[in-house]
Amino acid sequence: MKAIVLNRKGDRQSIEYKDFDLPKPAQDEVLVKVAVTPINPSDLIFIDGNNPTPRPMPSVIGFEGAGTVVESGGGSQADALVGKNVACRGLPDRDGTWAEFVVTKVDRCIPLMPEVSLEQGAMLLINPLTAWALMSSARQAGHKCAIQNAAGSALGKMVVRLSRQWNLPVINVVRHSKGVAALKKIGAEHVLCSADQDFQAQLKELAHQLSATVAFDAVAGDQCNIILSAMPAGSELWVYGGLSGEHCKIDPMLLIYQDKTVKGFWGPPTVYKLEKTQFDAAILEIQQNLDSTFKSDVRRVYMPAEFEQALNDYTSSMGDGKVLFGWSQGN
Amino acid sequence: MKAIVLNRKGDRQSIEYKDFDLPKPAQDEVLVKVAVTPINPSDLIFIDGNNPTPRPMPSVIGFEGAGTVVESGGGSQADALVGKNVACRGLPDRDGTWAEFVVTKVDRCIPLMPEVSLEQGAMLLINPLTAWALMSSARQAGHKCAIQNAAGSALGKMVVRLSRQWNLPVINVVRHSKGVAALKKIGAEHVLCSADQDFQAQLKELAHQLSATVAFDAVAGDQCNIILSAMPAGSELWVYGGLSGEHCKIDPMLLIYQDKTVKGFWGPPTVYKLEKTQFDAAILEIQQNLDSTFKSDVRRVYMPAEFEQALNDYTSSMGDGKVLFGWSQGN
Repeated sequence: MKAIVLNRKGDRQSIEYKDFDLPKPAQDEVLVKVAVTPINPSDLIFIDGNNPTPRPMPSVIGFEGAGTVVESGGGSQADALVGKNVACRGLPDRDGTWAEFVVTKVDRCIPLMPEVSLEQGAMLLINPLTAWALMSSARQAGHKCAIQNAAGSALGKMVVRLSRQWNLPVINVVRHSKGVAALKKIGAEHVLCSADQDFQAQLKELAHQLSATVAFDAVAGDQCNIILSAMPAGSELWVYGGLSGEHCKIDPMLLIYQDKTVKGFWGPPTVYKLEKTQFDAAILEIQQNLDSTFKSDVRRVYMPAEFEQALNDYTSSMGDGKVLFGWSQGN
Repeated sequence: MKAIVLNRKGDRQSIEYKDFDLPKPAQDEVLVKVAVTPINPSDLIFIDGNNPTPRPMPSVIGFEGAGTVVESGGGSQADALVGKNVACRGLPDRDGTWAEFVVTKVDRCIPLMPEVSLEQGAMLLINPLTAWALMSSARQAGHKCAIQNAAGSALGKMVVRLSRQWNLPVINVVRHSKGVAALKKIGAEHVLCSADQDFQAQLKELAHQLSATVAFDAVAGDQCNIILSAMPAGSELWVYGGLSGEHCKIDPMLLIYQDKTVKGFWGPPTVYKLEKTQFDAAILEIQQNLDSTFKSDVRRVYMPAEFEQALNDYTSSMGDGKVLFGWSQGN
């Protein structure tokens, strides 16, 4: 089969589109003929060598995708999936989804409802699950309002829509003033631009007024301190991404004297840890709303051989819709 | 009265030793004739403008000290303290302890046991309480081992001794190799020097071997990431100081993929939040061991008029014993 392969962790130049061994499913595993795979920030983190997933090297890249189950490795659940269209996550210790075929376990496959396209299904298990998990965890912990940065991203927009539906206010932070109107258009009530001169004062006032005691941080770097310092005492920062490529920077005095906390947040495992009935309900809610609340705008679908251009396109403007690979055309 | 006064927050040059109004105790408050006050890191933080304590400016510096209660503002508890030697914390919204007299509330005064000197008593309520609170919180949360940096400080040495007494292993980190022997001498079992070339590998091996899932950080800056990255998944960093003067720097991937957390830890309020019987037991334990477990080595006692030299002396070598002001000689 053909696959997009990383030869050396941390070396983007070592990526190749090439022939690779067709994987074999074992018991309770299935072989998925891949149709569509997205590029996610977590893929860039993996390529750059900063994701601890113990995949063997060289490794097929990719953590999620959608396709059709074409072979079962045995077991009733795996057998039942044959012929079905599924969204799937790759295995942490095996090759990823950016290939014509991928092997994964049955519990990492979600059969797609008939009305869900393979294109949207390919983006079901990372962004929507993370957005759902962030908002669900904030609600469960009793936070009255949340702050999010990178609010213009695909995931950020899902949070904006959930905020309205769940009646949990969110203060949205974008980097460019043009992002403000785009978010207001999809129903965001509170949108601040971090380029504004009085951004910190605006954020502080609003955060205290609305009791924003949790923040979802996709950026890391200086944003951690800027956001955390604007929040009321006792607040928490949940870091779920590192788009700035920098370390989180935080004034220790904010932590000590204002009882503030910085945590990591890894969305999909949070959902996978739920009890089965809750997990199924979450997945159902997400699938049923995959063309509305959890919709990802698509900028362009690339052929896998165009991986270099696709990666450049994606990283040049991560807020302008998702960049996908289409595997079903035959390459 | 005479006092050491900060005229402008953030301006060390604005400190003066001068005449200041004698404060008057109100109901449930007492006037303490101060005998001894220490210089603590928290005083430097206050002077540098980074402590949020809402003291009016200009303000007498100082958060703790020891002396004799010479006047009650009324109330049976305050009346009962008159004539007693006490350790006391200043009030957050009033002038501090670096003066001939200080007013504070009765619940911030601890009557000293007869065998406790005013010199050791002056250092009872910040370092010993913080060391006790760190170790007590770690034990209560079920951590099997802790890491601490700045282990050669007065507080660090208390943690070393508590580690032995409570049978809770601590991995001690010092900056200079000469600090290793000094800590071993007082009974430390695990001492690493952060200047060693393979320090990170040593720390990682030991942290995993001993399941060190909590770290006490007095330094901030790069140390946060160095220590946190050496610890097992799920670990917590409790920041209680910022001796480096830098922001905490943490790789977001450590937080996200290794489920690690960074919190602030403010010792004295942690103890003051305990129920009265627990609080009294903690204070009794500390007083009874103030010349052993909770002993602070004293480098030098200065006259208050020598504040400039005293501050320079203290900051030049914070691990070499405490620097105190003696107020009882008449100046």
